[in-house]
Amino acid sequence: MIQGQWTGDFESNNAWYKAEALKNKGQDLDLLILPELFHTPYFPFEENADFFHWAIEKDHPLVLEWREIAKELHCVIVFPFFEKRAKGIYHNSAYVFERDGSIAGLYRKSHIPDDPAFYEKYYFIPGDTGFEPIQTSAGNLGILICWDQWFPEAARIMSLKGAEILIYPTAIGWAKNEPESIYERQKDSWMTVMRGHAIANRLFVIAVNRIGTEGDLTFWGHSFVAAPDGYLLKDLPSNLLGSEKIQISFDEIEENRRWWPHFRDRRIDLYSDILKIWDTP
Amino acid sequence: MIQGQWTGDFESNNAWYKAEALKNKGQDLDLLILPELFHTPYFPFEENADFFHWAIEKDHPLVLEWREIAKELHCVIVFPFFEKRAKGIYHNSAYVFERDGSIAGLYRKSHIPDDPAFYEKYYFIPGDTGFEPIQTSAGNLGILICWDQWFPEAARIMSLKGAEILIYPTAIGWAKNEPESIYERQKDSWMTVMRGHAIANRLFVIAVNRIGTEGDLTFWGHSFVAAPDGYLLKDLPSNLLGSEKIQISFDEIEENRRWWPHFRDRRIDLYSDILKIWDTP
Repeated sequence: MIQGQWTGDFESNNAWYKAEALKNKGQDLDLLILPELFHTPYFPFEENADFFHWAIEKDHPLVLEWREIAKELHCVIVFPFFEKRAKGIYHNSAYVFERDGSIAGLYRKSHIPDDPAFYEKYYFIPGDTGFEPIQTSAGNLGILICWDQWFPEAARIMSLKGAEILIYPTAIGWAKNEPESIYERQKDSWMTVMRGHAIANRLFVIAVNRIGTEGDLTFWGHSFVAAPDGYLLKDLPSNLLGSEKIQISFDEIEENRRWWPHFRDRRIDLYSDILKIWDTP
Repeated sequence: MIQGQWTGDFESNNAWYKAEALKNKGQDLDLLILPELFHTPYFPFEENADFFHWAIEKDHPLVLEWREIAKELHCVIVFPFFEKRAKGIYHNSAYVFERDGSIAGLYRKSHIPDDPAFYEKYYFIPGDTGFEPIQTSAGNLGILICWDQWFPEAARIMSLKGAEILIYPTAIGWAKNEPESIYERQKDSWMTVMRGHAIANRLFVIAVNRIGTEGDLTFWGHSFVAAPDGYLLKDLPSNLLGSEKIQISFDEIEENRRWWPHFRDRRIDLYSDILKIWDTP
């Protein structure tokens, strides 16, 4: 997990992330995860047509550069980016690169927030990739992005399709107009709802957030790894600028599901109302 | 919330719960919640055909007695019981009684566990009531029972149908053959997954568990109330035998949903695979 902070310009920011990644050269790293929109400031703090210039196409040099890094580290990389899919067609996306530098898959953020200081509906078309895990040599990865983390349906469907880890590149923080008294509760809600996905589905959950202050937003860090019983294996402080490595074993998924056989007992005959927006008269 | 302990026989057990309830006479209590199968030992610790004698029909004196208590306290009561629906047809159920002693509704446990020391599939037919909140003068109550608590679908559907509180009467504990080292992690998983339902749906969650040791099982108590952001408003110790009262305001639901508008952004067009048992080739 690389927990970074926007440096102020594209070049120095990318250089920092790249240097942080390359520290792992020759270290047999399997999986490297970058935060949401790592190559830009958190530009959705306002609606500004100029900010579409941050979007990159699939053959942008940055993509090629990080595919080379995957090859150099011999490591799978989760590469979130502001995707220009076509003229006027933009998504909040993540590529997964294989160890040989090839593209293993693409996920487009499905749930798009829009709140004061997080004006994402202006920039990003809700994704059309659905919830398909991306099979890699480092595991079957259920890539989801930030706001997706509040939706148990996304976590469940990724699990039903065989994901071993849910991975949430994220950019979440406190807005200046919020009282400090609720800071801890908000951060705890964020962590708890995702730990809940780990438990309900008995798989690993990893969230990677940015840190630092940009305008009125202070990103809260706390990138973390949760075990299949929701136990916090790692929780980075909100002031840690850098990376953290952790070893996990997928055997824990099977072990957890034998003792807590939730998938055995689902009542799919009773779930169809979940496809409604709301369900009162 | 009444957190009780099986006394050893039906009469003294019921007398204890009744006395505990009646302490609230004249106190303007709105809602009283009993634990799962409060009127019996946790008999599913083994498969024994004799134990079906614990089941009660809808006109059993115990039902009538607790409807009278609802009237006497002028209070809504969640009354979990081992239901004999017909000859050989049994459910793990809960009635909700209105303040006037009438029956507001019935819920039948939908997800039935079966694990060493929890042989519930032998006794209980999976419920056919679906996830319909029960409208009462104390709120719109999403009654679910114990093992239901691990299933985000049940929580979500209750919420979509207008529930203001999810209420989980429970009988969960540690089995003697499990290492003590995992006790805390198991209890924390249990609490976290339900706090996750509160957060994802921005409503209140209440779980009421029993305590004490019965055979190889030690019930862990920790009856709790979580706010719509998952914050633990109350968490009873595992040795507390008795009741706890708490005041909550449903205004917090609206307030939470304005700031965290998850329901606005659900992608029901992408959720249909949730109706599958599993979804890999």
